[in-house]
Amino acid sequence: MAMRPLMPLVLLCIILAPLPVSLASKKRHFKWEVGYIYWSPDCEENIMIGINGRFPGPTIRAKAGDTIKVELKNSLPTEGVVIHWHGIRQLGTPWADGTASISQCAIDPEETFIYEFKVDKPGTYFYHGHYGMQRAAGLYGSLIVDVADGEKEPFDYDGELNLLLSDWYHQNVQAQMLGLSSKPLRWIGEPQSLLINGRGQYNCSLAAHLIPGSRTCKRRRGECEPVVLRVLPNKTYRLRIASTTSLSSLNLAIEHHKMMVVEADGNYVEPFFVFDMDIYSGESYSVLITTDQAPSSNYWLSVGVRGRLPQTQPALAILNYQPNSPSKLPSSKPPIAPTWNDYAHSKSFSYKILARQGTPKPPTNPVRQIALLNTQNKINGCTKWSINNISLVLPPTPYLGSMRYRLKNAFDDRKPPENFAKDYDVMKPPKNPSSIQGSNVYKLEFNSTVDVILQNANALSYNVSEIHPWHLHGHDFWVLGYGDGRFSKKDVTKFNLRNPPLRNTVVIFPYGWTAIRFVADNPGVWAFHCHIEPHLHMGMGVVLAEGVELVNKIPKETLACGMTGKMLMRNHLP
Amino acid sequence: MAMRPLMPLVLLCIILAPLPVSLASKKRHFKWEVGYIYWSPDCEENIMIGINGRFPGPTIRAKAGDTIKVELKNSLPTEGVVIHWHGIRQLGTPWADGTASISQCAIDPEETFIYEFKVDKPGTYFYHGHYGMQRAAGLYGSLIVDVADGEKEPFDYDGELNLLLSDWYHQNVQAQMLGLSSKPLRWIGEPQSLLINGRGQYNCSLAAHLIPGSRTCKRRRGECEPVVLRVLPNKTYRLRIASTTSLSSLNLAIEHHKMMVVEADGNYVEPFFVFDMDIYSGESYSVLITTDQAPSSNYWLSVGVRGRLPQTQPALAILNYQPNSPSKLPSSKPPIAPTWNDYAHSKSFSYKILARQGTPKPPTNPVRQIALLNTQNKINGCTKWSINNISLVLPPTPYLGSMRYRLKNAFDDRKPPENFAKDYDVMKPPKNPSSIQGSNVYKLEFNSTVDVILQNANALSYNVSEIHPWHLHGHDFWVLGYGDGRFSKKDVTKFNLRNPPLRNTVVIFPYGWTAIRFVADNPGVWAFHCHIEPHLHMGMGVVLAEGVELVNKIPKETLACGMTGKMLMRNHLP
Repeated sequence: MAMRPLMPLVLLCIILAPLPVSLASKKRHFKWEVGYIYWSPDCEENIMIGINGRFPGPTIRAKAGDTIKVELKNSLPTEGVVIHWHGIRQLGTPWADGTASISQCAIDPEETFIYEFKVDKPGTYFYHGHYGMQRAAGLYGSLIVDVADGEKEPFDYDGELNLLLSDWYHQNVQAQMLGLSSKPLRWIGEPQSLLINGRGQYNCSLAAHLIPGSRTCKRRRGECEPVVLRVLPNKTYRLRIASTTSLSSLNLAIEHHKMMVVEADGNYVEPFFVFDMDIYSGESYSVLITTDQAPSSNYWLSVGVRGRLPQTQPALAILNYQPNSPSKLPSSKPPIAPTWNDYAHSKSFSYKILARQGTPKPPTNPVRQIALLNTQNKINGCTKWSINNISLVLPPTPYLGSMRYRLKNAFDDRKPPENFAKDYDVMKPPKNPSSIQGSNVYKLEFNSTVDVILQNANALSYNVSEIHPWHLHGHDFWVLGYGDGRFSKKDVTKFNLRNPPLRNTVVIFPYGWTAIRFVADNPGVWAFHCHIEPHLHMGMGVVLAEGVELVNKIPKETLACGMTGKMLMRNHLP
Repeated sequence: MAMRPLMPLVLLCIILAPLPVSLASKKRHFKWEVGYIYWSPDCEENIMIGINGRFPGPTIRAKAGDTIKVELKNSLPTEGVVIHWHGIRQLGTPWADGTASISQCAIDPEETFIYEFKVDKPGTYFYHGHYGMQRAAGLYGSLIVDVADGEKEPFDYDGELNLLLSDWYHQNVQAQMLGLSSKPLRWIGEPQSLLINGRGQYNCSLAAHLIPGSRTCKRRRGECEPVVLRVLPNKTYRLRIASTTSLSSLNLAIEHHKMMVVEADGNYVEPFFVFDMDIYSGESYSVLITTDQAPSSNYWLSVGVRGRLPQTQPALAILNYQPNSPSKLPSSKPPIAPTWNDYAHSKSFSYKILARQGTPKPPTNPVRQIALLNTQNKINGCTKWSINNISLVLPPTPYLGSMRYRLKNAFDDRKPPENFAKDYDVMKPPKNPSSIQGSNVYKLEFNSTVDVILQNANALSYNVSEIHPWHLHGHDFWVLGYGDGRFSKKDVTKFNLRNPPLRNTVVIFPYGWTAIRFVADNPGVWAFHCHIEPHLHMGMGVVLAEGVELVNKIPKETLACGMTGKMLMRNHLP
C-alpha cells in the first residue's frame, strides 16, 4: 500500500525521460585506414595488418540504436580488404556484413568503402577481416554496444574491463594460406603466442620465477607490455571477454576470483558462477567479478589453450588492486587451464549457459531440419574440411548480388544435401575420404524456422575429433542441445525449448552434435562456418540465403566485381 | 650474264613463298594461372609468385607479326595482379601494357583478364608483374620474338641459348614494401642470390674449390640445379640475355669466350666484341659466341654485381661443350666482374652500343626538351626518389581511362616541371632535401619529337650517386648521348644523330646525364621510370601521355576501378 504513491512518478519518467531511442540514437563516424604495420605483439617484431597504424584496431563503443559509420580506406599496396562486424545482425543492411564473396566485393587498394549499419542490441562484439586469412594477420578489434540511454542492464557493476583474446603466428598469412592449400598439407601448427588486447609474451612467461623450467621475460615494454586491469577493492567489475583466435580454444581464469557469467554473444544469460571458463573463437562473454580478495596483493588473470595439446605459453594479465603497484607480481602461480582434453569440464561449462528470463523463446515448430556432417577429407590429395561432403569454395561474384539479380552460373545452384548417409560412422575416419568442392547455397524460406544439427565426426586419423566453433552471420540462434555420438531423431525430445540461450557462435564437441534453431527472418545471404581461420580456409562452412528478393538498394560499390561487376558495366543491373 | 636465267625463279619465290607476314602470322594462345608457390630458386625454400605452378613463368616464343593472347587467371587469394610485356610497344593496344594505375585496373583475385597484343618486332623481351613489387616476388618470364617467316636476322648462328637474369631476396615483398615506406627507411639491402633462368645458389659457390674462403654448394638439385648451356664445339651460338633484377646491375662474362653484341632491347646494333658486358635491370641483349676453345673442357659463365659493393655471390652457369659431362666443372676460376665502381669500364661498354645500319634515324628537330633531375629526398621523414622534385604516387584510377574520358580530380592535372633550378649542384646532396608527392603527367603533342635529358645527381649522402636504368613503356627511343656532370645546352651539339641506338631502357651513370629522343606516336599513357623495383616504389618515375583522345574501345574490364569504375556503374561512360 505504501508503494502506490510512486506509480504516477514512474509513469512520468517513462513519458518524459529518456528520449525515445530513435531520437536519442547517434551516428558514430569513424575514419579508418587499413595498412601493413611493424608491430611487436609478443615482443617479436613482425608485420601485421593494422588500422590507423595500430594493432589491435580501435575499439568502437556505441549505444544500442546507434548507427555506426566506418569510412574504410584500404592502404594495403596490392591486397583487397573487407571487415565483418561479428555478432551484428545487419538487419536491413546485408551488404554491410563484410564477408568477401558473400556480402560484397573486396575493397580494392586505395579505395574507400563506407560501412553503415545499426547496432540494435547491447552486447560484447568485435570486428575482423573476412577475406583470405586477414583476421589472422591482426585485422580485428572490439565493438562494444551499451544499452540505450535510459535503459538498464539487468545486473549492476561499478566498473568495466575489456579483454579481446587472440592467438598469434610468426609466419605470415600468405605462407599460411599456401601451406593449407598445398599437397601434402603444411599445417600451420600451434600459435607462437596468445594475446590479451593484442599483447603477449613469446617464449617466456611473466610468472617464470614461479614456474620451474620457464623463461623469464626481459624488458617487455611498449607494444607487448603486459595488460594491467586496474581495480579498486570490494567493487564489482564487468569483464567483457571475446575471442578472435585463429585456431585456439581458450580457458580463462582469475586467481581466487569467481566469475558470474551474465552475457554470451550479446545476449543475457541466466547468471552462474565459475572459477574458469572456456572461450572458443568467435564467442564473447561478460562476467562479473567482485574484488573481494586481500587488497594488498595483485592477482593473475591467465588464458591457456583448450582442446589441443598446448604448445603455447599461457597469456597473463595482472588484476591490479589499487593502490598496489601494477608491477607487483602475484606471489602464487597463475591459474592453470584444465587438462586440454578434459572435455567433460568444457561441456559442463557450455551446458550451464541458459537464457536469462525475458529472452525470446524459440518457435516450437521448425519447418525444416538440416543436418550438417563435419568431416575432414581429401580432394586431389589436398586435405580439406567438408560439410555433407562438400568443401566450401567461395565464388568470384558475391552471392548477395548474384542471387538478388538471379545470375546464372555465378555459383553451383544445385541444392546441397540436407543430411548424410544413415550408415556413416561418426566415430571412425571416413571410409571414403574423397570429397568435392562446391559453392552451393542452402536457400531458406523467408521467416521460416529452421533447425540445424551440427554433427561432428572423426577426422582423417583414428581417434581424432576436434572442437569446431560454428558462427552464424546475420542471426542469433537458440542452442537447443548438445549430445555425444551421432544425433538421432529421438534426441529432438530432449531439446531445451524452455530457456535455450541465444547466441551467434556455438561449438560442436569431439564426436558430438549440437542442435540450433533460428528464424530465417533477415533478408540476405549469410555465412555459417567454423570460426577457426584455417578450417574455414580449408572449406569448413556453408552459405545460407533467405528473402534475397526483398533486399533493396544494394550499394553498387559492393557489386563491382565478378559477374555483377560486368553487368553493371554493361548497364544490365537496375 | 650467267645470273640472268635465275631472275624469274627468284620472282617466283617471292610471289609464292613465303606467305605475306600478315597471312602467315599466328595468334598464340596461352592460359596462365598466377598464384603463390613454394619454390627454392637458390636452394632455400621460399614463397614466390609463380605462373602455372612454376618459376620463372613460361617462355613465350612467337614470330614478328604474331598476336599473343594470354588468358590470365589471378589465383592469388587476396592480391590483384597485372603483367607488363617489357619492350612490346603495344601499338594500338595501350590497355594491354599491364601497368597498374596507368594502363589498367589490377585484375582481382579469381578473375581472368585477357591480354591480347601484337609483337611487331623481333627481339629479346620479357614480361613481369607491374603492381606493388610483385616482380620482385618472382612474377616474370621470357618473351622471345623471332623474325617473321621468310625474314632473316642480319647475322648467322647455329644455335640459341636464353638467359633471363634476376636477383632474389628472402624477405617477402610485403615486408620489403613496408620497409621502403617506413620512417626511418628500412632499406632492403643487397639480394641473397643472383639467378640465371630462375636458378641460383645461396651462400655458396659452385666454384668454391677454386675460390679461397668460399663455401661449397651441397646437393644443389631440382629447382636450383645450376644452368647448363649445352653447345657443340666450333659452332656459333646466339645468347639472348635479359635482366629483370629488382636492384642489381650485373656483369656477364664467359671464360675465354668473346661475345659479339648484335642486339639490344629488340633492336639490332652495330656488332662489337667484348669479353664482359654490363646489363642493367630492364635491358636485353643478344650476343654471338663461337665455341672455339679447347673442346675437352667446360667453361664458366659468370654473372656478378656492378655499381654497388657486391655482397652477393656471383651466379654461375656451365658452358658445356658436348660430349663432355655437364658435371665436369671447369678447372679455372670463373671470370670475375670488374671492380664494382669501375664506371669507366661500364661507360666504355654503353658507349659502344650504336645502331646497326638500316636502323631508323631520329628526326632532327625535337619540338620539346624535358630535363628530368633524379634526386633522393625526404618527405615527412620518409626517404623518396623524386623527378624534378616530384615523387611519383600512382592514383587509384588508371590514367588511360581518366585521361581518355577527361575525368576531373583523378590525378594532379597541373603541368609538371620540365626543368630544374639553374643553380642546382648535381655534385652535392640537395640543399633542401624536402620534396612533394605527385601524380602529374607530361602531356606530349601527338607525333611530336621529344628529347629527354635524364640528369643524375648526388643522393642524400655525400659522395653517393647511383646508377638508374630508365625504362620507357610504349616506345623505343634513340640514345643520343651520355655525359658527366650537369647537362649543358652546348652538349646538344655532341648528340649522335648519325647512328644512335634504339632502345627501351638506358642508364644514367653516377653524376652524369643521358639524352634520349623519341617520337610521341603511340596514343596512350606510358610509364617512364627507373627499373629498380624499390626505386620505383619510392617514387622514381614519371607518366607520359600522347594522343589519348585517339584511343578507342578501351576494354571495360581495364576501367572497372576507381573513378572510371564508378562511372561505368552509373553508365556515364560511352
